[in-house]
Amino acid sequence: MTRRLELHPDRLFPADPTTRAIARSLYAGIADLPIVSPHGHVDPNWFADDHHWTDATSLLLAPDHYLYRMLYSQGIDLDRLAIPRHGVAPETAMREAWRVLAEHYPLFRGTPSRMWLDHVFAEVFGMDVAFEAATADLYFDTIGAKLATDAFRPRALFDRFRIDFLATTEGAHDSLDAHHRIQASGWNGRVVSTYRPDGVIDVEHEQFAGAMRRFAELTGEDVYNWHGYLAAHRKRRADFRAAGVTATDHGHPTAATANLSPAECETLFARIVGGDWTAADAELFRAQMLTEMAGMSIEDGMVMQIHPGSVRNHNAGLFASHGRDKGADIPDRTDYVHALKPLLDRFGTSTELSIILFTLDESTYSRELAPLAGHYPCLKLGPAWWFHDSPEGMRRFREMTTETAGFYNTVGFNDDTRAFLSIPARHDVARRIDCGFLARLVAEHRLEDWEAAELAQELTSGLVRRAYKL
Amino acid sequence: MTRRLELHPDRLFPADPTTRAIARSLYAGIADLPIVSPHGHVDPNWFADDHHWTDATSLLLAPDHYLYRMLYSQGIDLDRLAIPRHGVAPETAMREAWRVLAEHYPLFRGTPSRMWLDHVFAEVFGMDVAFEAATADLYFDTIGAKLATDAFRPRALFDRFRIDFLATTEGAHDSLDAHHRIQASGWNGRVVSTYRPDGVIDVEHEQFAGAMRRFAELTGEDVYNWHGYLAAHRKRRADFRAAGVTATDHGHPTAATANLSPAECETLFARIVGGDWTAADAELFRAQMLTEMAGMSIEDGMVMQIHPGSVRNHNAGLFASHGRDKGADIPDRTDYVHALKPLLDRFGTSTELSIILFTLDESTYSRELAPLAGHYPCLKLGPAWWFHDSPEGMRRFREMTTETAGFYNTVGFNDDTRAFLSIPARHDVARRIDCGFLARLVAEHRLEDWEAAELAQELTSGLVRRAYKL
Amino acid sequence: MTRRLELHPDRLFPADPTTRAIARSLYAGIADLPIVSPHGHVDPNWFADDHHWTDATSLLLAPDHYLYRMLYSQGIDLDRLAIPRHGVAPETAMREAWRVLAEHYPLFRGTPSRMWLDHVFAEVFGMDVAFEAATADLYFDTIGAKLATDAFRPRALFDRFRIDFLATTEGAHDSLDAHHRIQASGWNGRVVSTYRPDGVIDVEHEQFAGAMRRFAELTGEDVYNWHGYLAAHRKRRADFRAAGVTATDHGHPTAATANLSPAECETLFARIVGGDWTAADAELFRAQMLTEMAGMSIEDGMVMQIHPGSVRNHNAGLFASHGRDKGADIPDRTDYVHALKPLLDRFGTSTELSIILFTLDESTYSRELAPLAGHYPCLKLGPAWWFHDSPEGMRRFREMTTETAGFYNTVGFNDDTRAFLSIPARHDVARRIDCGFLARLVAEHRLEDWEAAELAQELTSGLVRRAYKL
Repeated sequence: MTRRLELHPDRLFPADPTTRAIARSLYAGIADLPIVSPHGHVDPNWFADDHHWTDATSLLLAPDHYLYRMLYSQGIDLDRLAIPRHGVAPETAMREAWRVLAEHYPLFRGTPSRMWLDHVFAEVFGMDVAFEAATADLYFDTIGAKLATDAFRPRALFDRFRIDFLATTEGAHDSLDAHHRIQASGWNGRVVSTYRPDGVIDVEHEQFAGAMRRFAELTGEDVYNWHGYLAAHRKRRADFRAAGVTATDHGHPTAATANLSPAECETLFARIVGGDWTAADAELFRAQMLTEMAGMSIEDGMVMQIHPGSVRNHNAGLFASHGRDKGADIPDRTDYVHALKPLLDRFGTSTELSIILFTLDESTYSRELAPLAGHYPCLKLGPAWWFHDSPEGMRRFREMTTETAGFYNTVGFNDDTRAFLSIPARHDVARRIDCGFLARLVAEHRLEDWEAAELAQELTSGLVRRAYKL
Repeated sequence: MTRRLELHPDRLFPADPTTRAIARSLYAGIADLPIVSPHGHVDPNWFADDHHWTDATSLLLAPDHYLYRMLYSQGIDLDRLAIPRHGVAPETAMREAWRVLAEHYPLFRGTPSRMWLDHVFAEVFGMDVAFEAATADLYFDTIGAKLATDAFRPRALFDRFRIDFLATTEGAHDSLDAHHRIQASGWNGRVVSTYRPDGVIDVEHEQFAGAMRRFAELTGEDVYNWHGYLAAHRKRRADFRAAGVTATDHGHPTAATANLSPAECETLFARIVGGDWTAADAELFRAQMLTEMAGMSIEDGMVMQIHPGSVRNHNAGLFASHGRDKGADIPDRTDYVHALKPLLDRFGTSTELSIILFTLDESTYSRELAPLAGHYPCLKLGPAWWFHDSPEGMRRFREMTTETAGFYNTVGFNDDTRAFLSIPARHDVARRIDCGFLARLVAEHRLEDWEAAELAQELTSGLVRRAYKL
Repeated sequence: MTRRLELHPDRLFPADPTTRAIARSLYAGIADLPIVSPHGHVDPNWFADDHHWTDATSLLLAPDHYLYRMLYSQGIDLDRLAIPRHGVAPETAMREAWRVLAEHYPLFRGTPSRMWLDHVFAEVFGMDVAFEAATADLYFDTIGAKLATDAFRPRALFDRFRIDFLATTEGAHDSLDAHHRIQASGWNGRVVSTYRPDGVIDVEHEQFAGAMRRFAELTGEDVYNWHGYLAAHRKRRADFRAAGVTATDHGHPTAATANLSPAECETLFARIVGGDWTAADAELFRAQMLTEMAGMSIEDGMVMQIHPGSVRNHNAGLFASHGRDKGADIPDRTDYVHALKPLLDRFGTSTELSIILFTLDESTYSRELAPLAGHYPCLKLGPAWWFHDSPEGMRRFREMTTETAGFYNTVGFNDDTRAFLSIPARHDVARRIDCGFLARLVAEHRLEDWEAAELAQELTSGLVRRAYKL
């Protein structure tokens, strides 16, 4: 006997009937709004090339570290999941890897991955039986067959998903070739990059030297000289701006900023590019560069996003065998109140600057982030991020930030994903949780119903468009 | 069309009908109890002089940094809100500032400020239309007209609010003149000060030197000598005690305490008053003074309140343009378990000492504060404080402290406000949230209904009177 | 008039009727499962000797630091509670101490102690009137009379409680005499020890020297030589294994681990046993020993439990007057992400190793522990621990860990108690809270009902048996 797969129309709404009815009504008002995705990691070549995807495993499992980190945590070898070792895929058949996922699908009970996948299965692929070992082949075959049709090519799904705007993320040393091809193609989908210069800022990254060479080639600047290096950033920012980009992104280990004198900057930079740096120099340089980027944002109007607090590639054994980005990034305790002060001392009262702050340390929501964003004109709060992009995580975000920062110092939802097919699912979860939170405020007579309806629109559409200057 | 303003009788109670009915019944039993406000910052001259207040802006907006920090965070210049620069008020008409608040009132959706103001508007001023741009002038005029009547003078409102006890806060270098005038006037309102010696303890405060001079004048002691300095504290504490004061208050950057020998104290103090101190000396001196104050509390019976963990005047640009206390204080991560140990090593088993601990770092509720207060006889937990004095903040406080510290190691509610008119609103929110929390325990059969009714009385009245020795 | 004592059948279930009905149904499916208690501190001599307990105070109050820490926090002298000073009991009559507890029973409102005691009173002793001053003697006499009967001897209650497995905890320097006597007695109750070597690892413990002497005697090894010391651990681990033990336990101040070279280990160990060590040496040695223990666990298959983050005997005055373990242990901020890295760098990818992590710092649930356990195959999450072993604490544990680590990287419930009679009460609270949490997921259509039923079985029985290799 196979079980049915059905998405319940009231899913994620609070169980109390009064509150649920309010949530349902709020959700009805915003469920069909187009998707605005201002931050994510989808591959832009998908839309430049518009090639068919080939199979369920390489589309849904291989790029999703949420999925394979959980399977790995239960002792499943990554080779069985077709995860590459240093970019070299193992000889695992895609169908076999898919069966492993299906057999272990109960591991995802209670996780957002389960909700996202079920949404993709039901809504995108029209499956009506549950995903389990017995249906693994049915799923693999059905998905494969659909992917072979034109209706399931990237641009077709982009339109079907009603995506109004999709940001990708590229390094300062990226040519933006894919985006240029999208623009040249005449397709009317808005797929736009984000300027992420970490590769040429983080000297501790193993690919720093290569990124710097590419940075020099693309800009024609002497990037090994402090002034040339800054000029190169300005050129690339202008390139990105010309391609429609409105935001930068900075994924540093900490939120540290610095405010060095020009002479100190030159000396520090000489050590960084000279190879004669310490870990403290690397951190100080990243810190100074956040302040430099803030200054350039005031010049060119790009919104800054700061995503600190992840210890990357924590698992040394896995890093050795498989390389980076294999689900082993672990959050760390993060300070904002002291870390951001040097930048804020310099630019904190600017009304031209806009910085969106993210965290992996929920203890900072009510203690640091909401008080900072509820005061500084240049600071806004990004949504619940990464591990916290989940029903309980989003609920805690609203409960811990709203009373101090209000709703209007937040910026709507980010899906932050490379799993393109899950984008509608993720936005739907966020909309449902926000409507449930607003419904509770209405049920407790802390908001009027018409105010909640206005806020539901703002949280879904208004805030993100204004915050990212779309 | 103007909208109605109505305070719903069930506001802030949980939506579940069973729980709400219990909450409503518990609240009915305590809603009309008189207000005991043991910690706050209302200006005592209001009650000494009993002058009419003049207008809505200077009474409700100008003293409330919750309001203007939110407006400032959205790019509104403080000049437009009539906020003074270094004590000098801008030439903004009060009516214009009031209109700015009205236009931006939606920013406060979901915040306690919105609930407090609506309560003041409806209950104190009898407004029945909602506050918005269209009603700004109506509000300004109505409030202004009422303030011109005798029923709205400070003492009349004090009586109407049924305030049983109101604590203000004055420095060790304050003459207590306003309180003496209140006492001499024959008015029967209990408005009593709190001994807050931070001004003569924190050498990093820009007004330390002036405060010390005044401290010397008021006491006739050689306050630049360690023994004279301690004697001066004893004299001022006696002055405060004679004026009915039962508590001290200490707003340090951290909860650090120290337990130095007398010789070490003398040496440290010599550096402090000699101007030859480091930041570490300043911190150590504050730490030692908490321990000294605890010793004096054992002598004279005054309850200590320790409020650590705020980085004051974080916004350097605003501090330069406008001066201190402009809504730019940001909470910091705070340690108690190590910080308090020196003081507790010396006085921790005393049953004569009573210290009330507050925090801006909610991660310490269940980790440090509840375990400390659930063990040490001298420690009690102050209520959810400052940014956490809000429906969600108060709910988290109860959820994270009760199971380890119980209810009886807490001390009731503090409004901690200088916004006198909001005092009934703030106490009402606290009572409703506590009743909602107790109702949940009853609904989940974790408490009997009669126990919850007893606890509602204790949380509203019994605990505060005993904790503050009223 | 005496009040009734009744345990409500719906206690601890959410109040919403839909959710409650689901919770009730889930609970019905697991309420009667046998108890598996894989971690605790019950005295094994009770089962070896099977003597009658004598009275309510020495059985229920004296061993329960949750009870007397709360009473002490309210100024009650421990002498009145018959708590020994350095092992010497005061001359307090047991009945008098019991009356003090009864008079102050309202202090426990809202705490788990109240729920546990009421459960013991009602279910174990059949009391049907509430515990209060007026019934103190009735309780004392009734309990005393029952304890004098054979039905209330330890083994009889063990059977009546339907305990399938009960772990105790003994030091590396313990002879396991009690367990050998249990095994030799032919009784079929499974009471098994846990290898806790802290006494011979923590050189800062005042009884380290004595523990080391006993360790040498029991093993015949030269424990003052690094290789002999390791060999002694291997021998004792084998002794414990032979007695049915499957787990070790490590209660360190922090989660620090180290990965020193053999030569560094020898040098460090020489300082430790030579008495020539600093606090940093003591910490480094504890850190290295966690890694050594992990290596031995890979050899012999024992599961490791790491319980860090408690500042022991915080109250210096009480430590001086009464000795250690008097309810004065206070949690501390705890880091895992950096602390565990040395151990994980060495053994983190092993699928033979299994480490169960506990915390007293709830801010690490979502930030560090769930991400770590949701990735590393060797890491699992222990349940809400110590102060957090409470309805709200357990609820927060599920809310903050499930979305990232899932349910299957957790290990079921630990009662972690020396209060043997409360074991059924504690497991019942955990089962009810888990069913309530699962019921909410079902009510919000995040899980199917049949999945929740499967999970309720796993959380009660399956996970613990697999995690502890029972």
